[in-house]
Amino acid sequence: MKFSTTPVRGTVDYLPVETEVCDWAQQVILSTYKANGFLHIKTPILENLDLLTNGDSGDNQKLMFKTVKRGASLDLGKANLTEADIVEEGLRYDLTVPLVRFFANNRDKLTFPFKAIQIDEAFRAERPQKGRVREFVQCDMDILGEPSYYAEVELLLSAAEAYKNLGFERLTFKLNDRRILNELVVLAGFDSAETVKICVSLDKFDKIGVEGVKKELLSLGYDEKNVERLLGFFEKIRGSASAFDTLKELGVSADVVWQLRQIVEIVSQRLPQGFEAVFDTSIIRGQGYYTGTVVEVYDSEFGRALGGGGRYDRMLGKFLNESVPAVGFSIGFYSTVMLILERNKQMSAAKLALVYGKGDDFLRVLDAKEALKKQGYMVSTFLFPKNFNEFVRRLNSCGYKKLVKMPEPEKIIEI
Amino acid sequence: MKFSTTPVRGTVDYLPVETEVCDWAQQVILSTYKANGFLHIKTPILENLDLLTNGDSGDNQKLMFKTVKRGASLDLGKANLTEADIVEEGLRYDLTVPLVRFFANNRDKLTFPFKAIQIDEAFRAERPQKGRVREFVQCDMDILGEPSYYAEVELLLSAAEAYKNLGFERLTFKLNDRRILNELVVLAGFDSAETVKICVSLDKFDKIGVEGVKKELLSLGYDEKNVERLLGFFEKIRGSASAFDTLKELGVSADVVWQLRQIVEIVSQRLPQGFEAVFDTSIIRGQGYYTGTVVEVYDSEFGRALGGGGRYDRMLGKFLNESVPAVGFSIGFYSTVMLILERNKQMSAAKLALVYGKGDDFLRVLDAKEALKKQGYMVSTFLFPKNFNEFVRRLNSCGYKKLVKMPEPEKIIEI
Repeated sequence: MKFSTTPVRGTVDYLPVETEVCDWAQQVILSTYKANGFLHIKTPILENLDLLTNGDSGDNQKLMFKTVKRGASLDLGKANLTEADIVEEGLRYDLTVPLVRFFANNRDKLTFPFKAIQIDEAFRAERPQKGRVREFVQCDMDILGEPSYYAEVELLLSAAEAYKNLGFERLTFKLNDRRILNELVVLAGFDSAETVKICVSLDKFDKIGVEGVKKELLSLGYDEKNVERLLGFFEKIRGSASAFDTLKELGVSADVVWQLRQIVEIVSQRLPQGFEAVFDTSIIRGQGYYTGTVVEVYDSEFGRALGGGGRYDRMLGKFLNESVPAVGFSIGFYSTVMLILERNKQMSAAKLALVYGKGDDFLRVLDAKEALKKQGYMVSTFLFPKNFNEFVRRLNSCGYKKLVKMPEPEKIIEI
Repeated sequence: MKFSTTPVRGTVDYLPVETEVCDWAQQVILSTYKANGFLHIKTPILENLDLLTNGDSGDNQKLMFKTVKRGASLDLGKANLTEADIVEEGLRYDLTVPLVRFFANNRDKLTFPFKAIQIDEAFRAERPQKGRVREFVQCDMDILGEPSYYAEVELLLSAAEAYKNLGFERLTFKLNDRRILNELVVLAGFDSAETVKICVSLDKFDKIGVEGVKKELLSLGYDEKNVERLLGFFEKIRGSASAFDTLKELGVSADVVWQLRQIVEIVSQRLPQGFEAVFDTSIIRGQGYYTGTVVEVYDSEFGRALGGGGRYDRMLGKFLNESVPAVGFSIGFYSTVMLILERNKQMSAAKLALVYGKGDDFLRVLDAKEALKKQGYMVSTFLFPKNFNEFVRRLNSCGYKKLVKMPEPEKIIEI
């Protein structure tokens, strides 16, 4: 039988040099978040469909992978079969929904507020494209139970520290607040119930431009005067020397503006050199669950966001008898690692090939290996190859730069 | 709407203290394997169904999770619907099948032999029970392309080093060889084609005893004389002072016996103190793909195997134009971590809670946090709680043993 050896559409194999960067990045992120008081937890990839289809996650739930019922519970002979008859669980499309379930399930064993790290796989059946895969790692940190903007400040500073430790030198944290967007929509004359729908169009500023957004809003049947007024607001904010003052002039609530301003100012003061935090009205974030601050992080040379997050104060109330405020930030691991790889991150120089001949006593080879390991090398043994050049080429492609040969394991050769 | 907050049947949430042990164990295993020259790779969880149902993986493929077709490709109105009409991909049930595909797909970028580490999730819809979950991490290391028993020796010594570094003090590596089993079956008078089926029964020695195995073999219709002869062989081997000599007396090929003896003897010489390697005829391993050495690792106090593996020299030939020998070992991560947790592994003492009051300037709190981080603490900030005792109880349950209060962040209190 003939098999396809390529990975499933939209998924990728990670070669040794790529995985080494992934391991390093994951370790850097995990230790940075842990140093900042976040606790690592793990939830299952398989999740209840009820939970995943709760309606707050925008397009993500349309892109969900679902598992087929097993054994006797799968009845394909049933009349008028619907998808609900054949599906059992879902594969999570993010780590936020499972986190909320986790918190509800384990609350009495957790600190309050609870600061969580998750570094795990999620799945979305998106159209595969450069920098976008269907099976991807997210690095999420969330603070559950902290209503004050201190949560945003710590979250963003911890994320910035992680990016800094990953070697990023120039990043911009672009912040906005959903409440500001909501108020601007209403101030422009729209019904407040239309906000989510309007935000979906506004989210396309960077893709289709102001004219594109205008066209789309008009095609949705909105009043032209309102649309022009709303787009005028954005133009005015973007063009002003003090965007926060402009917001107040336009009539946005002072306390909402004050809060975002506090976050931008405190974070700006404490960010690593080369990093900046700015208010940016174009930051919207698609998910329906955001209720306050929204943020995205941009590297100056990389078109798409490297990470993002925001406040979702109403999501936990669905699972608990009380409402619990929450704010989260997620590093897009795949984009971030790919960018690190593109920038030619050099990984461990300690990998060493130990070559032996057919005549060598294998116990002596093992002794040489142990002695080299004690010196800090990562030692892989190889029988002397037929084609030495090809052997070295492959060693190089796996990141090896050093080689020793029996019976002279102390003589290190650079390859 | 009401949601269930418990994880999907057969899956578990990992609390912070559990995840901390998982992280530690994963790091120990990964660094030990890397020191021994293995290269870390990652393959997708989603895998082609063709590949996963190749027929070599015994019960595992019956326990497979499959994903439902998406969008227009799911036609539930089709007549005589079969499972094949509605399924798209599978979730991998082990890491061996994906490894083989990976090797075939990326061969020219890899060293040869290729020594791989994988630490990743696999899925099996098994009946959930203590110590067995449906979504689990496997730690696999494999050597592809090395026909000699040196591969087994390095694999087992590297695994032993990993267990040792994880804190295990007494372990037994039980070894056998499928070729010995095959020869004994034929020597007892059975047709060699029956070996795999007979091995499935023999695999139940520890569960149903000799009488149980005998009954099962008879119920399968095998000749009573052959059955008694085969069981007699095993009894004789187990009762003998030199099992290897007995094998030869029974007529098993000398070179096969010699090879297993070499592995047992060399590994025994180099194992950490307290560890042993023995020949054990009861080690069978269910998967159909094993062709030579099979091994399982037992902790003296833990009933089930903590890990296992073996040689599978014919599996890669299905994907490549030539046959490539292979041998692998897998640590059962969940069982291993649960055992470490039961033995009360103490994790990091560096976690510290930094408590501040409503009146404290948050910038001063951030300064105190940074100063404590510089001292090596992992610092989590908390607003002074209403119920201090409950606050401390929860901190303890998340592994915190130290607390400081503003404005005296230098005064560390043990909690």
